[in-house]
Amino acid sequence: MKKFVNAPKDFVPEMLKGLALANPDTLKYVPEYNLIMRTDAPNPDKVSVMQGSGSGHEPAHVMIVGKGMLDAACPGDVFSAPPMDYVLETSKLLASPKGVLHIVNNYTGDRMGFDMGREMAEADGVTIKTLIVDDDVAVSDSTYTVGRRGVAGNFFVIKAVGAASEAGAELDELVRIGEKVNSVTRTMGMALTSCTPPAKGSPLFDLGADEMEIGVGIHGEPGRRREKLADANTIIDELTEAVVTDLPYERGDNVALMINGLGGTPISELYLAYGRAHEQLAGRGITVGRSYVGEYCTSLDMAGASVTLVRLDDEITSLLAAPAEVAVRIF
Amino acid sequence: MKKFVNAPKDFVPEMLKGLALANPDTLKYVPEYNLIMRTDAPNPDKVSVMQGSGSGHEPAHVMIVGKGMLDAACPGDVFSAPPMDYVLETSKLLASPKGVLHIVNNYTGDRMGFDMGREMAEADGVTIKTLIVDDDVAVSDSTYTVGRRGVAGNFFVIKAVGAASEAGAELDELVRIGEKVNSVTRTMGMALTSCTPPAKGSPLFDLGADEMEIGVGIHGEPGRRREKLADANTIIDELTEAVVTDLPYERGDNVALMINGLGGTPISELYLAYGRAHEQLAGRGITVGRSYVGEYCTSLDMAGASVTLVRLDDEITSLLAAPAEVAVRIF
Repeated sequence: MKKFVNAPKDFVPEMLKGLALANPDTLKYVPEYNLIMRTDAPNPDKVSVMQGSGSGHEPAHVMIVGKGMLDAACPGDVFSAPPMDYVLETSKLLASPKGVLHIVNNYTGDRMGFDMGREMAEADGVTIKTLIVDDDVAVSDSTYTVGRRGVAGNFFVIKAVGAASEAGAELDELVRIGEKVNSVTRTMGMALTSCTPPAKGSPLFDLGADEMEIGVGIHGEPGRRREKLADANTIIDELTEAVVTDLPYERGDNVALMINGLGGTPISELYLAYGRAHEQLAGRGITVGRSYVGEYCTSLDMAGASVTLVRLDDEITSLLAAPAEVAVRIF
Repeated sequence: MKKFVNAPKDFVPEMLKGLALANPDTLKYVPEYNLIMRTDAPNPDKVSVMQGSGSGHEPAHVMIVGKGMLDAACPGDVFSAPPMDYVLETSKLLASPKGVLHIVNNYTGDRMGFDMGREMAEADGVTIKTLIVDDDVAVSDSTYTVGRRGVAGNFFVIKAVGAASEAGAELDELVRIGEKVNSVTRTMGMALTSCTPPAKGSPLFDLGADEMEIGVGIHGEPGRRREKLADANTIIDELTEAVVTDLPYERGDNVALMINGLGGTPISELYLAYGRAHEQLAGRGITVGRSYVGEYCTSLDMAGASVTLVRLDDEITSLLAAPAEVAVRIF
């Protein structure tokens, strides 16, 4: 397989070790529980914020641990939910007098691991609340999900909640903020190619040389339909239309626009896509107040992209603009 | 082809338009000369710093225009040097009383375009000096190059020179700094896959399903040899060995270590590779003082990576650590 990998079972631990070695002052790798946490967590003056999910979506979530974002992330193996004992142990390591917030993308496996881990941690005296992210408009239920899937929009929930937690907000206030951001955030993605999990060594699903999948999930779950390849404008127009009409976003709205790459698409193409989406929104009288172009929530090496919108108000804008420090950077 | 593209001839202009739309306060797109420049350039109190090269290497160079980096970038079409008149017009637009610095990767086409553009701009009264970047240790001459190729190490030259220019350094001083950084910077890369230029619509070169190319150039130029796929550790050990022994970097050295993705490799794999390279250096008594993991200089959608080392001293460390603001970011 065309990947940097040694033994597939070591893929996630070796990635996490590299991440910690590259960020010795800010990140700590705890191999027993497969977790990455801030070296300065827990901080008794703030709620601890954590997320776990399958690996393979990097930078989500292990590479967005840091000041103003997550206090820790406990990933499972590639495309596998984190085990309940990792959720338990991470929650205990993060226990702060102000409590712990779990952010969970809406997949049945993730919810189960987090529900059970939370119960056990509460029995150990940790105060916990949970935020569910379900921003994907493509389908109403899915292969691994009851209800909508959580995808790239989780970045905005984490960013807003992380900023508020850094400013000292209480646990209930973080739940209010996170639910509010999730409620105004919508995403739809599409795949140009499949992706190759290290342990499988071959593509996760088949997609013909002249085909694409509109509305794909971040684990390759089926979307709305499979069809012939189209040009960039056609694809971006369809994704934008699906997202805009879902909330709906309306003339006069001020939004954050994210073009998220799925892992195998270069940033040149993402900026090309951004330009089209921006113009489509302008044509509908929707103003882009904040722009995000790059990889936020990926599917290993899948070529493809998603479009996310967030309806901004003063509170959300200020939380998104607050400083944050994470491993993923160019400098 | 599995790309976000409309008419291939519009690929670069559409990318540049998207880049400017996403960064309206800081970047300006000048379609007549295919250039991206800072909205606040030229600044009469600083030397203007510019680079041009073929497109397809993003974020290099159009996405690293900004405070503390480049004042402008004039790209050519995909894998084509910028035409001399773009170099001329960009130089004139950037004309500052303190002069203009051209940074050029060592490819024959780029050097020709810049030499002729410089001559014409000097005839128009612009003061110009040129810095050549040639950090690639893989081969001594190459398909499009006399001497060594300039690859991902150009990031460090730009970062250092950009920081010094922001602090008011004179043109000769920037040349001294840039030549110094280039002289202690070495890179070698490898390809797991070919890449697909939009205008060609098919892979630029053939690489078998079980093959890789060690020492590949960023336009797919042949490297040292083609061989059977190997595991990540074997690949990274070979790249690191080739880079370390070239300068050479020695026990007691403090270095910046960059793992640069070539466009199609996800960041999970890059951090795995980083961990191995970091350990290999530690085993040689070389300390990593600064870490860079991500995409800096790509080859469209090529899967692969390069390893770069920079030998640090106090001056270089301080220039690399200085603040900079460019489009490529997660926030």
